[in-house]
Amino acid sequence: MTTAYTKIDVASLKSLAIDVFRHAGLSHEDAGMASEILVEADMMGVDTHGVSRLEVYTDRLRSGGINRDARIKVDKRAPSLALVDGDNGLGPVVGGKALKAAFEMVRETGIAYVGCRHSNHFGALAPYAIRACEAGFVFVGGTNASTTICAWGGKEARLGNNPFSVAAPCRSGFHFILDMAMSVAARGKIRAARDSGEPIPQGWAVDQNGLPTTDPREALKGFLLPVGAYKGSGFAMAVDILSGVLTGGRFLSDISSWVDNPEAPSGVGHFFLLIDPDRLIGKENFADAMDRFRELVLSTPAADASAPVLLPGQLQQTRRQDALANGIEIPDELLAAIRALAAR
Amino acid sequence: MTTAYTKIDVASLKSLAIDVFRHAGLSHEDAGMASEILVEADMMGVDTHGVSRLEVYTDRLRSGGINRDARIKVDKRAPSLALVDGDNGLGPVVGGKALKAAFEMVRETGIAYVGCRHSNHFGALAPYAIRACEAGFVFVGGTNASTTICAWGGKEARLGNNPFSVAAPCRSGFHFILDMAMSVAARGKIRAARDSGEPIPQGWAVDQNGLPTTDPREALKGFLLPVGAYKGSGFAMAVDILSGVLTGGRFLSDISSWVDNPEAPSGVGHFFLLIDPDRLIGKENFADAMDRFRELVLSTPAADASAPVLLPGQLQQTRRQDALANGIEIPDELLAAIRALAAR
Repeated sequence: MTTAYTKIDVASLKSLAIDVFRHAGLSHEDAGMASEILVEADMMGVDTHGVSRLEVYTDRLRSGGINRDARIKVDKRAPSLALVDGDNGLGPVVGGKALKAAFEMVRETGIAYVGCRHSNHFGALAPYAIRACEAGFVFVGGTNASTTICAWGGKEARLGNNPFSVAAPCRSGFHFILDMAMSVAARGKIRAARDSGEPIPQGWAVDQNGLPTTDPREALKGFLLPVGAYKGSGFAMAVDILSGVLTGGRFLSDISSWVDNPEAPSGVGHFFLLIDPDRLIGKENFADAMDRFRELVLSTPAADASAPVLLPGQLQQTRRQDALANGIEIPDELLAAIRALAAR
Repeated sequence: MTTAYTKIDVASLKSLAIDVFRHAGLSHEDAGMASEILVEADMMGVDTHGVSRLEVYTDRLRSGGINRDARIKVDKRAPSLALVDGDNGLGPVVGGKALKAAFEMVRETGIAYVGCRHSNHFGALAPYAIRACEAGFVFVGGTNASTTICAWGGKEARLGNNPFSVAAPCRSGFHFILDMAMSVAARGKIRAARDSGEPIPQGWAVDQNGLPTTDPREALKGFLLPVGAYKGSGFAMAVDILSGVLTGGRFLSDISSWVDNPEAPSGVGHFFLLIDPDRLIGKENFADAMDRFRELVLSTPAADASAPVLLPGQLQQTRRQDALANGIEIPDELLAAIRALAAR
């Protein structure tokens, strides 16, 4: 089975996504904000978190699972602290407004924490991170998610595969952008193994009894394993505390699954933490140090000469450059579906 | 070979450690601060980062590798931002002063980032984290370290096993304290495998050519592997940026190894980030939410009924309670060495 692709330029894809969101009831501003975040993911090659989500996002907007008339409130609690109540609005709109509030505060005070509650799936972290880098800020961010992994030693999923990101601006070429989920492998890789009839490596997943398995079918009935065993499990909890507990929102298994219950509010929480390096050591000193940092990593002798050592986010930003210059390849079937949604 | 132990109460062990540091030239205040951090680690059972470090710490104080007359400067850059120049002072003294500065700022503004440069090995993170929890603050902290791991795909150690911690205060019993290094397994576990003639599991280490090995002797000549492969590698870099780049200090392989070069300044950097949950959602709401969080994790059905699901830091704080009530077991040989250092 081969997939046919069509290349579409970034502006046209954004414009299509805006039309889709407008037809689902969002304001022009909110549709623009959400489209930016999704198309940014596609530009970086993170197509699982790009326009492929338009259908499920707008289905939920139409069914009321996501509130298209959400009154998103930014509550500034202190000069560097804010809470955003998403009112069950679309995740990338809540996230976009939170990032904007964080920019305003970090510009004033040099640091900002903004936590969001009552939100929904808000796309990938990297699109937010790259905006922070472009504005010159160091970024730490995370989100909780509905449960797909086990607390270490458990046999019931009560923990999300909560992604975490740290990013830092670099002077030229590309920024440092780490955007990692907590599982050793993504669920999609296990589905691919099942489809091709291959076993999965030890350490990717446990079955529904919490026991190790290399059978992808058993793994899909069971749970993803976190990186570093108890370490990744604890780290996922830490991201949940910063995203869900500290924001007054939901966490762990109190988050509703938007796959199982598309019409119920998910109650997802996120956080962004920004620091202005210019206020600490000066913009130029920071840029010089990041140049040195990049140089030390990129010049590391490679174990396999054909696979040079890379920085987090480097491949994604190379793809992004290409997307800006030459457009993005979208599977024909997906593009047709998006065009249909946009034309409704 | 069996090790004989002697039980010693916490106050006596601290008093011994203070004498050791006083004899090595520290002020009473600094000796007290450093002893608190080391003995706290012993109380939690993290004995690799406790009083077992007294000898090497004081050797370096005597040789001038660590500056016993360090003028540690706290430079408040903004109401919630400070940089600490450790002047190559003893790590736990630099860390202790940085935490104190962070407490002052977070009490004023609800959030604080304090970064340290020109410091040294500063013990474990958990002792700092538990102080933040006792004061009611959410804690995020990290440190860089001399190089022991490879950037993913490399065959030269240019990255430290940089630990990272997130902690959150809980109302009763024990706090949430994640304190994780980036390697799948500690070097000590590989040494233990070598000594008992056992192979190590795949995924713990690579040999000096960057190739996978299960031979502990080859692993010890090579490098530790990070959790989640490229994920942990990127995460170690992120901790380095927050600890070393953002503080104007050293990072990656620019950090000097205190094992190879005990008489040279290490140039280690650390950071603490504190947030006051009371300023976001109110102290009581946060405590209620953490109660619910703990309950959801601890009631997770266990894959192995004899091994219940635990929270990060739970075992360590159970040991700490026991240490406070009944004292700490210290190997006789170590205790004799400490007493000799204290009596000099």
